[in-house]
Amino acid sequence: MKKISLLGATGSVGTQTLAILREHPDQFALAAMAFGENIQTALPFIHEFKPDLVAVKNKQVADRLKIQLDSSTRLVYGIEGMIEAAVHPDSDLLINAVLGSIGLEPTLAAIEAGKTIGLANKETLVTAGHIVMKRSKKLGVPILPVDSEHSAIFQSMQGQDRSAISRIIITASGGSFRDKTRDELAGVTVKDALNHPNWSMGAKITIDSATMMNKGLEIIEAHWLFDLPYEKIDTLIHRESIVHSLVEYADHSVIAQLGCPSMLVPIQYALTYPSRLTLKQTKTLNLSEIGSLHFQKMDTHRFPCVSLAYHAGKTGGSMPTVLNAANEAAVQAFLAGKIAFLDIERYVERALTNHHVIKDPDLKTIEAVDKETRAFVKEQIN
Amino acid sequence: MKKISLLGATGSVGTQTLAILREHPDQFALAAMAFGENIQTALPFIHEFKPDLVAVKNKQVADRLKIQLDSSTRLVYGIEGMIEAAVHPDSDLLINAVLGSIGLEPTLAAIEAGKTIGLANKETLVTAGHIVMKRSKKLGVPILPVDSEHSAIFQSMQGQDRSAISRIIITASGGSFRDKTRDELAGVTVKDALNHPNWSMGAKITIDSATMMNKGLEIIEAHWLFDLPYEKIDTLIHRESIVHSLVEYADHSVIAQLGCPSMLVPIQYALTYPSRLTLKQTKTLNLSEIGSLHFQKMDTHRFPCVSLAYHAGKTGGSMPTVLNAANEAAVQAFLAGKIAFLDIERYVERALTNHHVIKDPDLKTIEAVDKETRAFVKEQIN
Repeated sequence: MKKISLLGATGSVGTQTLAILREHPDQFALAAMAFGENIQTALPFIHEFKPDLVAVKNKQVADRLKIQLDSSTRLVYGIEGMIEAAVHPDSDLLINAVLGSIGLEPTLAAIEAGKTIGLANKETLVTAGHIVMKRSKKLGVPILPVDSEHSAIFQSMQGQDRSAISRIIITASGGSFRDKTRDELAGVTVKDALNHPNWSMGAKITIDSATMMNKGLEIIEAHWLFDLPYEKIDTLIHRESIVHSLVEYADHSVIAQLGCPSMLVPIQYALTYPSRLTLKQTKTLNLSEIGSLHFQKMDTHRFPCVSLAYHAGKTGGSMPTVLNAANEAAVQAFLAGKIAFLDIERYVERALTNHHVIKDPDLKTIEAVDKETRAFVKEQIN
Repeated sequence: MKKISLLGATGSVGTQTLAILREHPDQFALAAMAFGENIQTALPFIHEFKPDLVAVKNKQVADRLKIQLDSSTRLVYGIEGMIEAAVHPDSDLLINAVLGSIGLEPTLAAIEAGKTIGLANKETLVTAGHIVMKRSKKLGVPILPVDSEHSAIFQSMQGQDRSAISRIIITASGGSFRDKTRDELAGVTVKDALNHPNWSMGAKITIDSATMMNKGLEIIEAHWLFDLPYEKIDTLIHRESIVHSLVEYADHSVIAQLGCPSMLVPIQYALTYPSRLTLKQTKTLNLSEIGSLHFQKMDTHRFPCVSLAYHAGKTGGSMPTVLNAANEAAVQAFLAGKIAFLDIERYVERALTNHHVIKDPDLKTIEAVDKETRAFVKEQIN
């Protein structure tokens, strides 16, 4: 029986994690969970999985929730509460599926506590990969990728000669706008952007798919997760999202992980690693039914966010934090109808140009750069 | 430095094995080699790789070769000579790339001598898989697949939870006649059949690709190599021969091995396993340049040899020996212009129907059934 701490329980990855726990009650139990303020979604989960500890955003949410729970569930709140959930003494594995840079501190706390981590929180590695990976390596704590592409790469590296990796190839569906020209992109609406062809995800990540910044962030994540230089990280447009990513070796042999698009597979793999379990909620891949798979070069002229990410990643230091914060602020402004779709990349680029890189930033510096960057983008927009 | 025994040195796999040894002289040396009677091809190899022992078909070939060699090379011949090459005391790894059932005895001798075996000889597993795998398991001797599909499956199983394998999927290019109807197949010539679209191979295996019997033999091989029931072995037409085969797991995750078609990759993987080395002689896979990959269901009405193989495999005992021997005899007759292309499957089916299966046959029985079957097919043809 593996005991799980789950941060971000009411989000897309969180609820899918719970769906897997539900399919395998003999294998997994929920030790602790954290969510923000979506009590309505969380309450049935708390009743169903009976975690020992529940962490919420703040005291107000905790108070509202308290009256609906019996006294056996411990209730905590704030960032300290989330950290308590992450390092719960019973838990064997932390699934960190919170959105945004708030996921960083619980990740670091879990590493210090020696918990294996299934990481769905991109920001943790994008902004503080140098800190997170250094500690996890030093303490021998495995960081297991939870998103689809990194899980595919991780699966394609198992049992292989890692010193012989010549390249990893991250596939990209192309997002909602893959068939649009730059001119057409200028006029797209929020509604257009939220309509992703293959994956059903949150709003932020769907916009990031459309701008291809999602791939950019994944490139930086992959750099840290797999300890590979940016020169060995490549991308490939693959519209069907069946080949989830590939790893090329020195002998030109390529290992890939395939499957029908579903986040359940990478989530479950992090939960069961290195074993596998049945997963009834996903479909068998039927390649003859699909008929053909298509591949195209990544067009960085159409999708400059990919180049911006390579630039920020290669520059290193505080630059990826700027990339991530500027992007979050710009996407927020786009979703609020304040800027046009193509403005997202412009504000990100402006923020990168404006920033003087700080080498090897500590957590405080990362936080400060993050705040400054958001303020800079907001100021530019208004 | 790994020392290699190579059987079938002048054939397609043999010469490619030597090309790899040539690329990595710091990693590999040739301890012993065996070939039939092609002195012209073998002689430069003997001079270049200076094996301690050379085995040839018979005394006549040995005598002709002797006068062209200095006395430092030991010369042996016949099946005993081949066995001596297979179990050479210096050798760490046997690459068995001889054609036909003659490869069986050296394989068994190498297992007894504890040599790791890279197996390119299909007949060894098709006719005597039950004997070979039982001994190799008992003595803990690894059998590494050398052909493309089985190597792909083997590579896709590394580091994975083998108990969770739900299916392996062997891909098939479709051979020279993949776009022909049954009616068109009736009239094809030897020359047509020898023109394989993706792979350059020997005549026998090229015809086997066209009839799809090659896939049938591979299904039986896979059954033994990976200890999987026939229900878990599937096939898939994939005309580009880029995805060399796939392994599906209980969670619907599929791991596949891809690459430009080249026998060098699986040969080298057997030589370097579990490590990998550079392989300059092969091309980098460029999926965006290829553009698209196609997949189709295997059509067993058009290619009944696949069904015949499943039937022989599931029946087990001496039946796969009959399948293999009848096919060899029929292909020989086709190449000699004595029968039509579609007659190959007819004679194989007739031989299977005629045979009374013998359970758990020993080597003598296998040999006898092999002979009887060839005689039966010849008799039917004349």
